[in-house]
Order: sequence, then C-alpha cells, then structure tokens
Amino acid sequence: MFQSKNIFVRWMNKLSPFQIILLFYLLAIILSTLLLSLPFAYREGMNPAFIDILFVAVSAISVTGLTPISIAETFNVVGYILLALILQLGAVGIMALGTFIWLILGKKIGFRERRLIMADQNQTQLAGMVRLVKQIFLVLFVIEFISFVILGIYYLKYFPVQEAFLHGFFSTISAISNGGFDITGDSLIPYRHDYFFQFHTIILIILGAIGFPVLIEVKEYLFAKKQKRQFFRFSLFTKLTTITFFILIIVGTIFIYLFDVTHFFAGKSWHETFFYAFFQSVTTRSAGLSTMDVSQLTEANHLFMSFLMFIGASPSSAGGGIRTTTFALVIIFIATYARGENDIHLFGREIHRQDLVKAVIVTLLAVMIVYITLIVLVVIEPFHVTELFFEITSAFGTVGLSLGITGDLTTISKIILMILMFIGRVGIVTVLFMFHSNKQKRNYRFPKERIIIG
Amino acid sequence: MFQSKNIFVRWMNKLSPFQIILLFYLLAIILSTLLLSLPFAYREGMNPAFIDILFVAVSAISVTGLTPISIAETFNVVGYILLALILQLGAVGIMALGTFIWLILGKKIGFRERRLIMADQNQTQLAGMVRLVKQIFLVLFVIEFISFVILGIYYLKYFPVQEAFLHGFFSTISAISNGGFDITGDSLIPYRHDYFFQFHTIILIILGAIGFPVLIEVKEYLFAKKQKRQFFRFSLFTKLTTITFFILIIVGTIFIYLFDVTHFFAGKSWHETFFYAFFQSVTTRSAGLSTMDVSQLTEANHLFMSFLMFIGASPSSAGGGIRTTTFALVIIFIATYARGENDIHLFGREIHRQDLVKAVIVTLLAVMIVYITLIVLVVIEPFHVTELFFEITSAFGTVGLSLGITGDLTTISKIILMILMFIGRVGIVTVLFMFHSNKQKRNYRFPKERIIIG
Ligand SMILES: [K+]
Ligand SMILES: [K+]
Repeated sequence: MFQSKNIFVRWMNKLSPFQIILLFYLLAIILSTLLLSLPFAYREGMNPAFIDILFVAVSAISVTGLTPISIAETFNVVGYILLALILQLGAVGIMALGTFIWLILGKKIGFRERRLIMADQNQTQLAGMVRLVKQIFLVLFVIEFISFVILGIYYLKYFPVQEAFLHGFFSTISAISNGGFDITGDSLIPYRHDYFFQFHTIILIILGAIGFPVLIEVKEYLFAKKQKRQFFRFSLFTKLTTITFFILIIVGTIFIYLFDVTHFFAGKSWHETFFYAFFQSVTTRSAGLSTMDVSQLTEANHLFMSFLMFIGASPSSAGGGIRTTTFALVIIFIATYARGENDIHLFGREIHRQDLVKAVIVTLLAVMIVYITLIVLVVIEPFHVTELFFEITSAFGTVGLSLGITGDLTTISKIILMILMFIGRVGIVTVLFMFHSNKQKRNYRFPKERIIIG
Repeated sequence: MFQSKNIFVRWMNKLSPFQIILLFYLLAIILSTLLLSLPFAYREGMNPAFIDILFVAVSAISVTGLTPISIAETFNVVGYILLALILQLGAVGIMALGTFIWLILGKKIGFRERRLIMADQNQTQLAGMVRLVKQIFLVLFVIEFISFVILGIYYLKYFPVQEAFLHGFFSTISAISNGGFDITGDSLIPYRHDYFFQFHTIILIILGAIGFPVLIEVKEYLFAKKQKRQFFRFSLFTKLTTITFFILIIVGTIFIYLFDVTHFFAGKSWHETFFYAFFQSVTTRSAGLSTMDVSQLTEANHLFMSFLMFIGASPSSAGGGIRTTTFALVIIFIATYARGENDIHLFGREIHRQDLVKAVIVTLLAVMIVYITLIVLVVIEPFHVTELFFEITSAFGTVGLSLGITGDLTTISKIILMILMFIGRVGIVTVLFMFHSNKQKRNYRFPKERIIIG
C-alpha cells in the first residue's frame, strides 16, 4: 500500500506542470461524465447515448456549451444543478479550485503547487498566486450571488417562485462561466425582446470572459484610497486585453449588422437590430448564448462570426480560442514589421520576444488545426462546409454557437469536436508542451545562413 | 523638356526599390493589356470586354493562368504568340528582363540597378546579381529551345507541321513559365492518356517552379570539374526549397489520391490513377495546367488542393503563393518551439531571425488576406464557398486552376482576383514595403513587460 502510494507520488513528480494540468482536466471530465450519468439527473424516459453524455461533460468542463442533446428536455432539476456545478468548475479552472480546497484545509501551498496554478491561469510570476486564486473566488461568488438575487426576483415576471430562482441560478452561472448552456430549450430566444435581461446577461458574459486578472485589478483600483488611486497603474496585460476585447465587440456588432442589413435585419426596429447585433457580437467572445437562431444570418456573417469565435476571449478567463492578447500581438507585430521597425511596443512598454513568439505559434497552430479539422469533417459529414467551419471555430473558441448540426454529427466528429473544445480551453501551448521533455540544451551554435523567403 | 526629365529622374530616385518594382509591374500590365487589345490578335467576330482583356493581361504577367474567356476560342495565332511572350516576360521577372536589355545595350549595371534585381529575385546578396540574370536567361532559353524541338516533333503525332510547332512553342512556354494557359480549349485534358507528354510537361513545370537559383546551382554542380565537385556545397536555400518542393509533390499525390479513392479514382487503372494524382499534385505548385476537370474531385480534395496552392512554388521562381521556404520555416519554427528549443537550425546551419520573422509575417498576412477576400466574395457572388476559396487560393498562388466560375464572376470580383494574382506574384512583403518610408529609427528602448498569451 505504502509502496504503491510511493510509486504514484514518484510518477506525479516526474510529470511537468502542463502534464499535471491535462491530467486534472481529464479526471474532471471523467468525474463530470459519471455525475451526468446518474439516472436521477434525467427526466423520465430519457436515456441519452454515452457519447452524448461524454460530449456534454467535455463541453461543460471546457465551458463551451455545444450539445448534441437538448439540456432542457433531457435533464431534470438535479441534472441542471449538476451541470451548473460542472460549468462553475470549468470556469474557475481546476487548479484554482484545487488551491481553494487546499486553502480551506489549511494546507500550505508549496512552490510546486504555485507553478501549477501559474500555468493554468497563464500567469508569468509566481508571487501572489495564492492571493490571486482567493480573489478570483471572492470576486466570482460575490458577483454570482448578486446576479442570482436580481435575476431570481426579475424572473418572477415569467415563472413561479421556485422556478424563477432555479432559472436565476442557472442563467447566472451559464452566463458568467460563459458556459452557454440553457434550460429554456431555446437558448435566450424567449428573452429576445427583454432588453433588461439581455443587458444583465451581457454584463455577466463580459465579467466571465474579460479575464480574472482584469477584474482583480479593477477591484484594487476601485477600493484603493484616493491618494493611492492617482498612482495606480493598470498592467500592460489589462490594458491590452480590455481594449482588444471591446474593439472586437464593437467591430463585431457593426459587421454582424452590415452583413445582414438587407437580410435578417431588414424591417427590424433600431432597438431590435441593435440588441440582436450587439448580443450576438458579445456572445462570440465566448459565451455561446444567443437571442436568435444564428443559422438565419447570411453565410458571410457565419464566416465573420467564425473569425470572431476563433479569436475567443481573454486569457485567464472562462473563454477559449487563440485569445484576445494573441490576436492583438499578431496584429501589432505585422503593423510594426510593415513600418520597418524592430521593437514591438505599446503603451510605452516593449513586448518580450518570447511572448511574441508564443502568440505567433498559437495563431499559426490554431489555423492549421482548424483547417485540418475542417477537411476531415468535410470527408466524414454531409453538411455544408460553412456549417462545419462554424461548428469547429465554435468548439475551438469554446463558444458553443451552432448552426444546428451538433446532434446529427457522427461519433467520430463528436470526438474530434471534444478534442477541439479541450484544446480551446487548456490552450494550444499547454497541449504542445504535454510532450515536452527537459532534455539538455545544446552548448554550441550552428553558423548562420540566409534564406530566401516568399 | 530637360526640366521635366529632371523632375522624372528625381521622382524615380525618391522611390524605394519595392516601389519601382511595383511600378514596372504596373507598366508591364498596361503594355500587356494594350498588346492583347490589338484587333488582329483575335479570331473573327471575337470582341471580349475590356475587363476580361485586363484580367488575361494580369493573369499572364503574374503567370497565373486564370481566365474568364477561352484563350483558344478568342485569340488567333498572333494572339497566342503575344500571350506566350507576356508569359515569358512574367516568368523571368521584369527586372531581370530590364537588366538583360541593359546588358545588351552595353550599359554598366550600377549599385542601384543591382538592388532592384535583388529585391525582385528575392536575393539577399548584391554580388553576382548580373551573373545571376545572365544565367537565368541562358538556362531558360536552352531548356525552352530543346523542349520546343522535342514537342514540335512529338506533336506531329497529333497535328500537321505548322500547328505541331505552334503547339510545341505554346506548350513549352505555358509549362516552363508555369503560366498555365492553353490553346487546346480544354487545358491538357486531350492528353490525359499521353504519359510521355505529361511527363515532359511535369519536367518543364518543375524547372519553372523550383526557383532559378536552384537551377543555376545544379548547373554549376554538373559542370564543375571532378575534383571541385566533391567540395561543392549546395546552399541552404537550395536544399530547403528543393526538399520542401518534392515533399509537397509526394504528399500532394498521395492525398489527392486518398481523398478521391472511392470517387474519381474508383475503377481507374493504376497508371491512370497515378498520373492523374501526380500531375494534379505537381500543377498545384504553380502551373495550373490540368489533365482532368478538377471540379470532378470531392470537396475535401478541393480544400486540400487549395492548401497546396496557397503554399505555391519556390521563391525566385515563376510561381506564387507564400512560397515553399516560407511554409518550411513556419513548420520548422513550430517544431522547434514544441521541442522547447530556441535556435532554429537545419542542415547544420542556424536560421537568421529576420528570415524567420519574414516567413511568419508572410504566412499570417496571407491567411488574413485570403480569409477577408473569401468573406467579400461570399457577399458578392452566388457561388459555393469552396468554389470561391479554390479560386482565391488559385489566384494568390498564381496557379490558375479553377472549378469553372472565373468567367461568371462580377467585375468587382475579377478586380479583387487581379489584385490577388498581383500580390501572389510580387510577394506580400514587396507589397507591404510599398508604403515604407525610411524614417528615423528610435534610439531609446521602452521598458519590457510580460503579457499573457493564449
Ligand atoms: K461558451
Ligand atoms: K500558373
């Protein structure tokens, strides 16, 4: 017994932080699948296939929201609550949750544990990791509780008391976790004319997708004493990700409108048009909830929204994709090169070369993965290539929007989409470094030689 | 008069090499359009629209081969010969041609002229530029003359003497320039069972697309004395581009076969299958000639061939796309990063950082350009998104394959494709540096700050 535990510990110690994170995510998927397989989580007579339960579990842990089965019709209240808990787990990151449990148990957080959290939350400094995790939970729970109360009361307009608070609970977690699942059976389409509810949901989505470090910095700024506040400096990361995030939402709203100005938006009032375009733009950041059947939009709009979903949300958030900072750095990189300059800088700070390299690698690999997946799905599936592309970018961006083909996909395609959701959630670099060995670096260098490019 | 010439010279001196190259290409397009507008170049009763003549001119100068009109049915023998000359002009590059004329006129080639050729042929060293241009022409003319004689005699099998040598002339130039135009009216489909002719054409295509520097190095190797030959070292560029080129052809052949094993290739003999797959793989490097109607292949094959066309041919060749070396460096870059190493090296040589940066910029920009163009064409055109994507990558790779929609496109789409062919031919970086000013570099550096990536 002791011997075998020893072996287990030694085996764990051999793993890199990236391998441990992947291992924990896999365990979380297994646990979620088991939870969602409990017979009392289903409505009477419902007996979904194992692959579909597994798909929902992966979709929930990766807070994507794609599902081949109707959540509303398949699960009962117990199922809804289990699903909400899994979304919550997925959103805060398993490592963060693990730390939280360690903290509660009074266990000292060692250097090794800190490194794990650092990799999971994409942080580059060890200091303040534990504080970060504590703050993530504090901020999250406070926001969730306030939203739960507001929505629960507001939903009395639509439902009896118990149901109102159940919907308030699920809506809150689905939105702030960017999980994107619904228990209405029709996403947020029933609330397409309820602008208060939509606005509330947009706030929750943004809070979940803009990145926990941003929330914590904003909190620190707001709670700082007056004289301290004027010296407060937001980090480069917070500035870059926030600006990119909101530019994407604004540009998204404008183009979603323009691509359908003579189609879906024809004859709609200005406020309907605005809220449709705005909500659907916000949801492509990562949420996946929608106030309309997005398959009604034009094909150009589907391709544009696929691009938005491919970028995804901020790093260290509940969202996926290549992430806002990656996209921003790539654009800045190209612009700097076009101007013939070398050093890449913004807001009076120079960007580290290894960050730039990472951004470029992530983008190039993501393009390849998406394209290869597309070709494979085109071989397997009878659906239109744009429907498949939309589904793929939705899975990779852990967004969860769909043109309605998820349920009709073959098992192989479902497995491929699960892998994409997983990669989208944990990040390409984490997956890449899964195979990483700490082998000896070369001490000598090769002579350089020029090469002709493009 | 003298005054105005002075102004012209001063204006020219203000232009960067990149701007001058673009200017020369634009002049070549105007000249080609004028030539192809000559009424005696057409068959009786033929009177194509201006936009279509312009399109053919751009397609010929960029050696793409896309055409909205049938070359065989529109032009007469004079038109064929003019078109062949324009292809030749496009293939060797206008700057190289300019140098050749200067050489013939006995004009000394100055530093400024050498820089122009260097940029046009993507060379990174000034030394040996003039020698390079001389050698390009020598190699090209010798190969073309041999092919002309062989094909002229061989074509006696199909045509009377005069026609045989006309076809021999046009086929030779269309293949070696990778121009891809045909005067059969049906590409090389009439020769789909003539393996000798196909093999001959493949050799010509490869000679045109593998890059002039490679040809010259191989020539130097072959003509070197025996004791010198064992010390002969092929350049890193030659090794990289040649290996990538042939890997792409082999992988292309295999996958083009696999994607259609149960469709187009079902029931075909092994030699038919092999030559169809092999020829179509070679043609995606840049040639655009085809021995079959490629629209008969499956959609997955179209997406795969689009990927091959996007990569295109070697730099300093008659082909376009992001180029083989760009693709190779990107793959090597990702592999090196995944292994956790820093220095990128191959064949015992370290890659220069600025070459890597250029490869990455070219690839990222190309992906963006292709994707944005795709969305625009989806808005404008009624065709299937895969047909449009195929057309776009074909134009960008200056390949010239089409699923048959070129002639039915709107004028705006034709203009967009012309711009893509132009960018594909001169290269993204040249276009990027068009707006380049030599403004003062900063002397100070900004403090560095880390950013969280994906
Ligand atoms: K989601
Ligand atoms: K071509």
